[in-house]
Amino acid sequence: MKLRVYLSGEIHTDWRETIKQGVQEAGLDIEISAPNTCHEDSDDCGDKILGAETNNFWKDHKASKINGLRTRKLISDADIVVVRFGDKYKQWNAAFDAGYAAALGKSLIVMHGSDIVHPLKEVDAAAQAVCETPEQVVDILRYVMTNQLP
Amino acid sequence: MKLRVYLSGEIHTDWRETIKQGVQEAGLDIEISAPNTCHEDSDDCGDKILGAETNNFWKDHKASKINGLRTRKLISDADIVVVRFGDKYKQWNAAFDAGYAAALGKSLIVMHGSDIVHPLKEVDAAAQAVCETPEQVVDILRYVMTNQLP
Amino acid sequence: MKLRVYLSGEIHTDWRETIKQGVQEAGLDIEISAPNTCHEDSDDCGDKILGAETNNFWKDHKASKINGLRTRKLISDADIVVVRFGDKYKQWNAAFDAGYAAALGKSLIVMHGSDIVHPLKEVDAAAQAVCETPEQVVDILRYVMTNQLP
Amino acid sequence: MKLRVYLSGEIHTDWRETIKQGVQEAGLDIEISAPNTCHEDSDDCGDKILGAETNNFWKDHKASKINGLRTRKLISDADIVVVRFGDKYKQWNAAFDAGYAAALGKSLIVMHGSDIVHPLKEVDAAAQAVCETPEQVVDILRYVMTNQLP
Amino acid sequence: MKLRVYLSGEIHTDWRETIKQGVQEAGLDIEISAPNTCHEDSDDCGDKILGAETNNFWKDHKASKINGLRTRKLISDADIVVVRFGDKYKQWNAAFDAGYAAALGKSLIVMHGSDIVHPLKEVDAAAQAVCETPEQVVDILRYVMTNQLP
Amino acid sequence: MKLRVYLSGEIHTDWRETIKQGVQEAGLDIEISAPNTCHEDSDDCGDKILGAETNNFWKDHKASKINGLRTRKLISDADIVVVRFGDKYKQWNAAFDAGYAAALGKSLIVMHGSDIVHPLKEVDAAAQAVCETPEQVVDILRYVMTNQLP
Amino acid sequence: MKLRVYLSGEIHTDWRETIKQGVQEAGLDIEISAPNTCHEDSDDCGDKILGAETNNFWKDHKASKINGLRTRKLISDADIVVVRFGDKYKQWNAAFDAGYAAALGKSLIVMHGSDIVHPLKEVDAAAQAVCETPEQVVDILRYVMTNQLP
Amino acid sequence: MKLRVYLSGEIHTDWRETIKQGVQEAGLDIEISAPNTCHEDSDDCGDKILGAETNNFWKDHKASKINGLRTRKLISDADIVVVRFGDKYKQWNAAFDAGYAAALGKSLIVMHGSDIVHPLKEVDAAAQAVCETPEQVVDILRYVMTNQLP
Repeated sequence: MKLRVYLSGEIHTDWRETIKQGVQEAGLDIEISAPNTCHEDSDDCGDKILGAETNNFWKDHKASKINGLRTRKLISDADIVVVRFGDKYKQWNAAFDAGYAAALGKSLIVMHGSDIVHPLKEVDAAAQAVCETPEQVVDILRYVMTNQLP
Repeated sequence: MKLRVYLSGEIHTDWRETIKQGVQEAGLDIEISAPNTCHEDSDDCGDKILGAETNNFWKDHKASKINGLRTRKLISDADIVVVRFGDKYKQWNAAFDAGYAAALGKSLIVMHGSDIVHPLKEVDAAAQAVCETPEQVVDILRYVMTNQLP
Repeated sequence: MKLRVYLSGEIHTDWRETIKQGVQEAGLDIEISAPNTCHEDSDDCGDKILGAETNNFWKDHKASKINGLRTRKLISDADIVVVRFGDKYKQWNAAFDAGYAAALGKSLIVMHGSDIVHPLKEVDAAAQAVCETPEQVVDILRYVMTNQLP
Repeated sequence: MKLRVYLSGEIHTDWRETIKQGVQEAGLDIEISAPNTCHEDSDDCGDKILGAETNNFWKDHKASKINGLRTRKLISDADIVVVRFGDKYKQWNAAFDAGYAAALGKSLIVMHGSDIVHPLKEVDAAAQAVCETPEQVVDILRYVMTNQLP
Repeated sequence: MKLRVYLSGEIHTDWRETIKQGVQEAGLDIEISAPNTCHEDSDDCGDKILGAETNNFWKDHKASKINGLRTRKLISDADIVVVRFGDKYKQWNAAFDAGYAAALGKSLIVMHGSDIVHPLKEVDAAAQAVCETPEQVVDILRYVMTNQLP
Repeated sequence: MKLRVYLSGEIHTDWRETIKQGVQEAGLDIEISAPNTCHEDSDDCGDKILGAETNNFWKDHKASKINGLRTRKLISDADIVVVRFGDKYKQWNAAFDAGYAAALGKSLIVMHGSDIVHPLKEVDAAAQAVCETPEQVVDILRYVMTNQLP
Repeated sequence: MKLRVYLSGEIHTDWRETIKQGVQEAGLDIEISAPNTCHEDSDDCGDKILGAETNNFWKDHKASKINGLRTRKLISDADIVVVRFGDKYKQWNAAFDAGYAAALGKSLIVMHGSDIVHPLKEVDAAAQAVCETPEQVVDILRYVMTNQLP
Repeated sequence: MKLRVYLSGEIHTDWRETIKQGVQEAGLDIEISAPNTCHEDSDDCGDKILGAETNNFWKDHKASKINGLRTRKLISDADIVVVRFGDKYKQWNAAFDAGYAAALGKSLIVMHGSDIVHPLKEVDAAAQAVCETPEQVVDILRYVMTNQLP
């Protein structure tokens, strides 16, 4: 059994690294993917490649569409999409990814603190699992692939 | 030509009424639908119908799934999904709806103030139109259906 | 808003009538459908229309396929599939319908007593709502369509 | 020719081992998969990974959804789903899997004793083959892949 | 309950009329459709509308594609496709329609004499019912829609 | 039998009117639709509704996306898409519509003069019929719906 | 570029071998597949594996369904389906395969003598190429993969 | 991360070679594919393989359908379709490919000079990126796969 897992959402903590390391230590055959997590580059890619815009709306628009080339491909290929919500920023792209993945029939794992259960209830309702830590994500993936509980 | 339009997102201003009235005045054959916009009932529906939960996570979970019966049906049936983001609250369900609709191939119109262009850039990038007022939504719908510009 | 609801499962109590009556009293625009609930006819339809079989396997096979003409059509057309499990009989066809509907992306409401929660956990996990009585089904449908809680 | 075959259903006899051994002896290029067949762990996985629930319904719910991460993936990837019904227990999850697989257009092989033909007639009606023993499943798979009859 | 039924295949007997009359007498809400059954016109439509071809292959090609505008639409819209095989002619278009309908997930009823069971076994294997007379088709449709056996 | 037909392509002659009139005279139950054929408005709709752009690329982009709300809906709903190529202008949107419709499985009728057969060969190869005049389109539609040849 | 090609239809001449040899000599990376071409075994597989039937209809039915496990898998996996019609036998299964493949969006190549153009016109109309010899099939495949003409 | 990229459109400059070389120098794991870019052979393939036609329409038709075997396969397999429009010729097949790819949900990159922005606005509106040079295509692909900006 092999899985492809896409890690969407919050980019200001090292949760993706914790999951990658846990997966590696558990010896699981998982292809992990993620969006570009360099905030600045993902904002500037449109201008840097295709030329500068004077209007910020179109600067953002061009950049988002180029970043979309990556995220559309990786979410479409994924078996499981993990979406992490932190306690800062709007993170509407994370919720958008969750909705996009749900409509494609992908399995969702949502990770967030217990303080934001209420505003995330619709996202959680579409998930196969809701957890709080990256270690729990690793535990779920190991169990799903090897039937071993922690 | 007949359209079905679903109005997702912010529930604390009367933007839905403005659109409904504008559509009616323009004589457009549009079936407008929306989620339950009564915040309290949409929170309590699980407990009130299926029995009270002691744990808030499950209270929210039951309610969200029942509300999902409505939203899944209406988004699936819609030709166009309009998503409104206000300047308060997390509104992750609005972004989730946008992603869900996009993956189903629905046409999106996103409505929000110019101050939140940046955090909404991924949602806007998936839209056919981005606007600021409900009057613009009506203008778009009238033009789409009757070829008449304001 | 109009819904098409298919009532699958147990055929030895009058739960379907209770739902139909409740829906009518609530004035909901719902097209309710069901399998043939006459046990004997649904067993004999193959032999009676196409000629008798000497082998019971093929008698059952012919009948099930003819009944399938009805159930495939009605489940495919449904927005919501309600599946009722009673405390008698195998009811594998009810669970089959639930799986079939889930894979087609239909919304599921599962109805059963609290004593059979454990063997039904996989079916319940795929549902938007799990309830115990036909009155609760009516309450859910009324809320979904009119936003009114009981 | 390579096949992916998912073995769903009854977990209290060694039928899966018999099929795996037969497939290996026949030298067939088949990737065989199965749900977690450890009854206790599949019941407890939710509580053990995500924390204990006081309400058994939610304990079952969390566990089923996590197990669903595995079964959804494996059924979606399968070419053929074999579903085994034994003479004990409700086995509604087996029938649910059969319906789910049928709606996805997967080929079904159903295996059960002749004494339960009647309650399984709807499941059998959706199958490409109905048999009684794991040896017959191996015979079918060998014939399908190599054109060799027993 | 309303059905759309497409009657494909043999065009040299009046079986379609018998079904239409039986459906009407039974008061069933069925929209019955069929290909153009005028052999000559269906052969000549390409030449007559688009201009004559000197090469018979292209004459046939143009005609078949125009006829395909009708058959593709009607099969796509149908709930049930009835395919009749007679004892004369090649009728490869009937078998093609059956395969086309099967792959679209339409329910098939196949009608033919008992003398051609063997060459039609693959078509019959994809059907929900195999019968010999138009009266049996009517009996099936009445039972499917009204639960009444003959 | 009822058809929905979308008329795509060239907007500088009155071919759409000829088809509409022919369809009406023939008494065919066809819902005919078309893009906005007012060249100026379809160019300006973005600026006029959403505000003026200084950069022509974005002016065109906004307008095209709003026009896309109409064309995506109408092509998705159509049974048959008729695409007309004239002898002037690039008409890349007509060819884009043809490809879009083909990939959705819609039936195509392509209409153009004999002098541009060669550059249109890939579009023609995806069509059910290739003709030169709007009268031929009407002849095809009448034949498809009524089996009557001219 | 790699292709998967399924060779359907006539089983009494060695056309499949000619294609396989031509493909091998041309060094094309094609995975060629075919149904079981042993007429007797494909008739008897149901009885031999699952037990003898007294009624020939059910003998044929069981066998066809088991053979269907192979053909459904191989056609679903194929990029191109080649269907050969000979001058003997009914070959309804070949036409059924062609319709099935067409509805799945597979590319069809049809191969038959010029004497049966007329009865095959509907099948030919759905094809990307119609040819007479296996050598032409090889020429097409070589050109498609390497751009080299004979 | 691995991508499959199809390069559609203009065949009279060496833009495909520039992209291939850039991709190779950047060490990207991309499978690049293209139509047959030999104009003469793609025109003649039908006649050369299947026999000469006297009517140019059918000569073109046969050739286009054979070329379609290649393009349908490669576009269906692609993650990203790059479409290049030059300043000469009609290039309707390029716009057709763009529409076909868009309807299949493929990501589009469109490449053309700034002088043809207006006639290409509908094609550009469906794209994730619009650029002018093959070097920009390489920059986009490198960024999408490695997160590195130029």
